[in-house]
Amino acid sequence: MSVACGRLDDVRKIHVIGIGAGDPDQLTLQAVRALRSTDVFFVLDKGEVKSDLTQLRRDMLDAHIPQGSYRVVEARDPERDRAAGGTAYSPAVGDWRSARAAIYQRLIAEELGDEESGAFLVWGDPALYDSTLGILEEILERGEVAFEYDVVPGISSVSALVARHRTGLNRVAGSVQITTGRRLAESFPEGVDDVVVMLDAHQAFRRYVDQDIDIYWGAYIGTPDEILASGPIAEAGPRIERLRAEARERKGWIMDTYLLRRNPDRR
Amino acid sequence: MSVACGRLDDVRKIHVIGIGAGDPDQLTLQAVRALRSTDVFFVLDKGEVKSDLTQLRRDMLDAHIPQGSYRVVEARDPERDRAAGGTAYSPAVGDWRSARAAIYQRLIAEELGDEESGAFLVWGDPALYDSTLGILEEILERGEVAFEYDVVPGISSVSALVARHRTGLNRVAGSVQITTGRRLAESFPEGVDDVVVMLDAHQAFRRYVDQDIDIYWGAYIGTPDEILASGPIAEAGPRIERLRAEARERKGWIMDTYLLRRNPDRR
Ligand SMILES: C[S@@+](CC[C@H](N)C(=O)[O-])C[C@H]1O[C@@H](n2cnc3c(N)ncnc32)[C@H](O)[C@@H]1O
Ligand SMILES: C[S@@+](CC[C@H](N)C(=O)[O-])C[C@H]1O[C@@H](n2cnc3c(N)ncnc32)[C@H](O)[C@@H]1O
Repeated sequence: MSVACGRLDDVRKIHVIGIGAGDPDQLTLQAVRALRSTDVFFVLDKGEVKSDLTQLRRDMLDAHIPQGSYRVVEARDPERDRAAGGTAYSPAVGDWRSARAAIYQRLIAEELGDEESGAFLVWGDPALYDSTLGILEEILERGEVAFEYDVVPGISSVSALVARHRTGLNRVAGSVQITTGRRLAESFPEGVDDVVVMLDAHQAFRRYVDQDIDIYWGAYIGTPDEILASGPIAEAGPRIERLRAEARERKGWIMDTYLLRRNPDRR
Repeated sequence: MSVACGRLDDVRKIHVIGIGAGDPDQLTLQAVRALRSTDVFFVLDKGEVKSDLTQLRRDMLDAHIPQGSYRVVEARDPERDRAAGGTAYSPAVGDWRSARAAIYQRLIAEELGDEESGAFLVWGDPALYDSTLGILEEILERGEVAFEYDVVPGISSVSALVARHRTGLNRVAGSVQITTGRRLAESFPEGVDDVVVMLDAHQAFRRYVDQDIDIYWGAYIGTPDEILASGPIAEAGPRIERLRAEARERKGWIMDTYLLRRNPDRR
């Protein structure tokens, strides 16, 4: 635990709570307990297109905690400002993270009383492609606010994807790699035949449609908009491209993840 | 859904439920709902040394479902017989899986009524190094019993490990690989610097103690026996070896997992 000063019971407590990747029933009992012990929820809004996701978080609070027993503090995520172009923040990841750290630090210092506990609700599992833990460490290193924090693991979109497809991540005694669309666009990862791809805005799987690969794809997994598709990539790939374009058009945004399973025997 | 015969409502239903990797509070609300809708639980006992884990499953049932509303059917896992040496099962993975499939098929055919639902409680997340899904597919392919099944994702020991260490799986925009002790003993995975190792009976990390790697290790994560250790591998490695040997001696068995984080800059 990181304690910078003060009597022990004076130290602010923060929970970083994984809330699952879309289905409110993916909350764990531990997460529900953490929600109930929280005084202040920090909600970072990523802008209009993602307001469905902010609403889902609010619905979770309504479902599990008595109204009036907690406060919600909202702030605007610097990410959107950058995308909108009208901002002083550099697009470099480090600077962007520092901009976020400054916002989080202010929220903690100004909105959280000495003996209160706060929480950040993190999509999926806080361990996968999420900056919350890095930001909290950055704030503690600056040493201007003191707090303790713990992490409640959540069901990731990766676990949710393969559960819906009723398949495993690894094959018997094999390995699995989790990577990004950007990296997959550069090359197929070495040494593994099972690869999960996240954060892919450009359907990097298209580069591999001539290979002997099965794809298991899902969008908006766990939500009422969920779409699933799977099959040999040569056939399923173009189908997924169409489904993805239509859904994105319809909703204005998309979240999707997929598993590529290369057949080593027939390669 | 896999339906081989019969009227739709006549078909047996099976839930494959991820129950988390040790902490009963890691159950999701979806898992609790699935437990409550189950008539028959199939418990495959892996023998004396793992009876703690069988007990944990029973405690979960007691905590969430009214006694008398369900049945528990136990069977002996062929794995132990093989280890004991006095068995007709070959140690080849395929044969062992077929031996299990035969047991599961018998359990489903003999113990589950036509309109009942059954469940297998799977440690952690059914997607990681677990054979239940493969076995159910094998039974359906044989075509001798019909059933539908769904999968409830669970918190894996991987998620639990990094949550306890309050760190992420991947670094910013990076990849992470999940692999086995056996594979790590052969070589450090190519193309990644963040590697989670499971099923490691021989502390394969020892081969890498002279490299610039941080290790985040955990044993019996989420249980009252939980042990955590982390640090630069040169220093933490020998400490972990000692902790592991002592714990294994004390309890008679051990479950441990670790993340290796190689520093690409200083390599
Ligand atoms: C910033 S990352 C956060 C991941 C999150 N921490 C998790 O554990 O799933 C966002 C990416 O997660 C994936 N994702 C998150 N939720 C999803 C969902 N409900 N359906 C499909 N993909 C999802 C997508 O690949 C998306 O680009
Ligand atoms: C057969 S695999 C099953 C993994 C499981 N499906 C999961 O999602 O965690 C067993 C391996 O999981 C890891 N493991 C499972 N539970 C654990 C725990 N509570 N603490 C540490 N490692 C654990 C160990 O590496 C062990 O060798």
